[in-house]
Amino acid sequence: MAAAPVWSVDPRTGKQREQVAVAATAEEVDQAVRAAAAATSALAVRAVRAAFLRTAAELLEGAKEHLVEAADAETALGPVRLTGELARTCYQLRSFAAVVDEGAFLGIVIDHPDATATPPVPDLRRYKIPLGVVAVYSASNFPFAFSVPGGDTASALAAGCPVVVKAHPDHPATSELVAATLRRAAARHGIPEGVLGLVHGFDAGVELVKHPLVSGAGFTGSVRGGRALFDAAAARPVPIPFHGELGSLNPVVVTEAAAAERGEQIGTGLAGSMTLGVGQFCVKPGLVLAPEGAGGDRLVKSLTEAVSDTEAGVLLDHRMRDNFVAGVRERAELPDVDAPVTPGAGGEHTVSAGFLTVPAARLAEEGAYDLLLEECFGPVTVVARYADDVEITAVLSRLPGNLTATVQLSADEAAGESGRGAELLAELTPLAGRVLVDGWPTGVAVAPAQHHGGPYPATTSTSTSVGGTAIERWLRPVAYQNTPEALLPPELRDANPLGLPRRYDGAQEH
Amino acid sequence: MAAAPVWSVDPRTGKQREQVAVAATAEEVDQAVRAAAAATSALAVRAVRAAFLRTAAELLEGAKEHLVEAADAETALGPVRLTGELARTCYQLRSFAAVVDEGAFLGIVIDHPDATATPPVPDLRRYKIPLGVVAVYSASNFPFAFSVPGGDTASALAAGCPVVVKAHPDHPATSELVAATLRRAAARHGIPEGVLGLVHGFDAGVELVKHPLVSGAGFTGSVRGGRALFDAAAARPVPIPFHGELGSLNPVVVTEAAAAERGEQIGTGLAGSMTLGVGQFCVKPGLVLAPEGAGGDRLVKSLTEAVSDTEAGVLLDHRMRDNFVAGVRERAELPDVDAPVTPGAGGEHTVSAGFLTVPAARLAEEGAYDLLLEECFGPVTVVARYADDVEITAVLSRLPGNLTATVQLSADEAAGESGRGAELLAELTPLAGRVLVDGWPTGVAVAPAQHHGGPYPATTSTSTSVGGTAIERWLRPVAYQNTPEALLPPELRDANPLGLPRRYDGAQEH
Repeated sequence: MAAAPVWSVDPRTGKQREQVAVAATAEEVDQAVRAAAAATSALAVRAVRAAFLRTAAELLEGAKEHLVEAADAETALGPVRLTGELARTCYQLRSFAAVVDEGAFLGIVIDHPDATATPPVPDLRRYKIPLGVVAVYSASNFPFAFSVPGGDTASALAAGCPVVVKAHPDHPATSELVAATLRRAAARHGIPEGVLGLVHGFDAGVELVKHPLVSGAGFTGSVRGGRALFDAAAARPVPIPFHGELGSLNPVVVTEAAAAERGEQIGTGLAGSMTLGVGQFCVKPGLVLAPEGAGGDRLVKSLTEAVSDTEAGVLLDHRMRDNFVAGVRERAELPDVDAPVTPGAGGEHTVSAGFLTVPAARLAEEGAYDLLLEECFGPVTVVARYADDVEITAVLSRLPGNLTATVQLSADEAAGESGRGAELLAELTPLAGRVLVDGWPTGVAVAPAQHHGGPYPATTSTSTSVGGTAIERWLRPVAYQNTPEALLPPELRDANPLGLPRRYDGAQEH
Repeated sequence: MAAAPVWSVDPRTGKQREQVAVAATAEEVDQAVRAAAAATSALAVRAVRAAFLRTAAELLEGAKEHLVEAADAETALGPVRLTGELARTCYQLRSFAAVVDEGAFLGIVIDHPDATATPPVPDLRRYKIPLGVVAVYSASNFPFAFSVPGGDTASALAAGCPVVVKAHPDHPATSELVAATLRRAAARHGIPEGVLGLVHGFDAGVELVKHPLVSGAGFTGSVRGGRALFDAAAARPVPIPFHGELGSLNPVVVTEAAAAERGEQIGTGLAGSMTLGVGQFCVKPGLVLAPEGAGGDRLVKSLTEAVSDTEAGVLLDHRMRDNFVAGVRERAELPDVDAPVTPGAGGEHTVSAGFLTVPAARLAEEGAYDLLLEECFGPVTVVARYADDVEITAVLSRLPGNLTATVQLSADEAAGESGRGAELLAELTPLAGRVLVDGWPTGVAVAPAQHHGGPYPATTSTSTSVGGTAIERWLRPVAYQNTPEALLPPELRDANPLGLPRRYDGAQEH
């Protein structure tokens, strides 16, 4: 059987641009994983990993124009957004280099013998070591920041784990270019190029997660695809951690006082957030609880105006466009659902943004309206108008896990002058991994305090895929007992020759 | 159908002692989980949790004689061991109270806005919150320390998670007594008694892991039982973290120089470790690589003498006894396997300790000898005699994951004077979660640096079930973005009113 060709497709026309590669066979996946495993020891020294990540950022920046052009040609995300995404990606690579340099991620704990403990404590020293080869499944909607050079890859390499990436079919050419750039960066530091493998094809992705030498996986994509791979990871003879970011509705609650105070402004802000990147963000606000009455009406009016002004856009691929068109049609057909701006097909290759409204009471019980509680990828949101706070609680109680949950408060509520702000934060916290006040969830900063994850199906684990702590996913602790100083890894020696932060006999040292 | 009776059985006679309870129905499991969930808010304040854990320790100590007697009657572990285990359990409860007081487990990270970041960083504040109700599956071999009041329960309560325990059928009466004690401790602090649920029965255990309100599970037991529950946890509509400790061979490598230097001493030490508690420890050394030649012969001779002197013992139940007798017989029947001291049936209700020897070369390739690389619960170990270091590497490369791996070195090797010590540590580290030099793995200290876990099947996750970091299993992070001081949880306020350790704009504070 001939190998299946992998095409780069122009979403602006639906036409094939070029054949980039062929789908990897099981044998080729095996080769990529073995090559990655063979590169493990080259990542052992932290300084080498940090330098590699910084060189990767530098080379990506050097190839910026070429990369942005390639990515735009097959994603239609546009040069402005893609230039920003590449800058973010390079910032992220450097952030992880800084995490590696600092060494707090090693989680060093040293306990000297304590005969008074029950049972007595021997000399015990614990730190974290890399898991092994990590499989990374690229996202469609971020050809850089959540793909070949993205957070999963950067955090895995930072941890000392080689990576094999399953390229997303929406940007195979970009994936090849970036992988080649990362391999050049590796070579500059004497790291074998196999440290960053790249495979194409659906079956290759399944082979990859099942490979005995793969020790963990990161995924950003749909609930359906992510769950299938999660299930495969769990069903292995030796199960592996699977950190998948699958889907999120990202609810927003607008209080009555907030709508009264700044309904127009909220409507405009919402329009910007839900249509950003043609609605192709995993943190797009997909459900907005807005009050009935005048304030809510003003919100809907300004949302209507702003969304009507939004130009039709191109989605990442035509399958997504079909799903969007079918998804919004099915939702709009529900009784009592209105479409002040009808979302759907734009031109032959585009979609137009829109939004739906529904009485919140319809969402309070299981039934046909549950469809409105499912993510619909693309430029659409659902505004559910509530009569009172009881309805807010009823709808929130029906939501699955989310990456984010947002509340829009009045100035008084934000200042804590009524209890309502704190009450709503307490209601939203169990639903999400990031809770926002008076902001919009699109835009995920790369920072130590970031948490990009949340209760299932937002993520399949309790960890984050953005921010410094994302490195924790690719490590496991090991403790050394009664081990002579001469045999200990330098990280665990009393003298602390590497100057690392650590917990030493119960006290934190820098 | 009448409810299935749950009997306490005397392993010294195989006779039923008393009917303790009936197996919980699905409805009763549901009630226990709902009662636990309803107790969540009572655990919200850290000081209350810490006080609860300390009171639990105090009340358990107060009931010591009664509890030890009850546990001995149904486990035959003996009052000395059980008194020690209860002391360890109380020490552990207090250790987690100290972890709660200190608050480092909250993982607080605060980042103020940074406009120079790409993209700009808003105000972000992250800490960890409790997962929700935790299911704990008790171990057979530790009626206190890894059962109702054990490390899983203590760490979950410390994290703020109510617990429902599935009692082990080997000590249902002890489980009931301890659960009642813990509930009394809860009541003293105004915590609903439902915070600690207890259910009996195999089916109840399966119901428990599937319950929608259960958010995580801890397990200590067999590979077969643990894997079945792990699979059920992964197959849920909403999968949950399953932290299982399943099985471990705990390899020991004795270098030629070590055997030459102190072969007798190593033989005696090994005998003590492998027969401790009638070999019923998850960290029992089950495979020992010892050199051919005079030093190894002396090791085997002293092991023979010490094991021959060991009295027959009672295993936790008669099914285990049957498995042990069948397991050692099957292993001993392999060609080239000798039994210098034959393990097997002792008296009608006892087993006698023993050990097997085999040429290490037999273990180097897949085949019938793989049986010797599987854990055999009870007082038996396998001494594999190796001809050279190549054989050591060949056998180690065939081992599954372990809780521990141990090396016995000569004084010179331990001092780092040959490279052999470091070389062996590097070979053992990938195999285990705890690596020991010149010690024995039985005995698991409760300490911040402890790691009781390891590559599968040692554990199903990368976390530990012993030591302060065990609390991390029951938490998930949440980040607050742009949230006014007045609405933030006190843990995340700039002023740090609770005096918690935290990472503040990149610097560790405490």
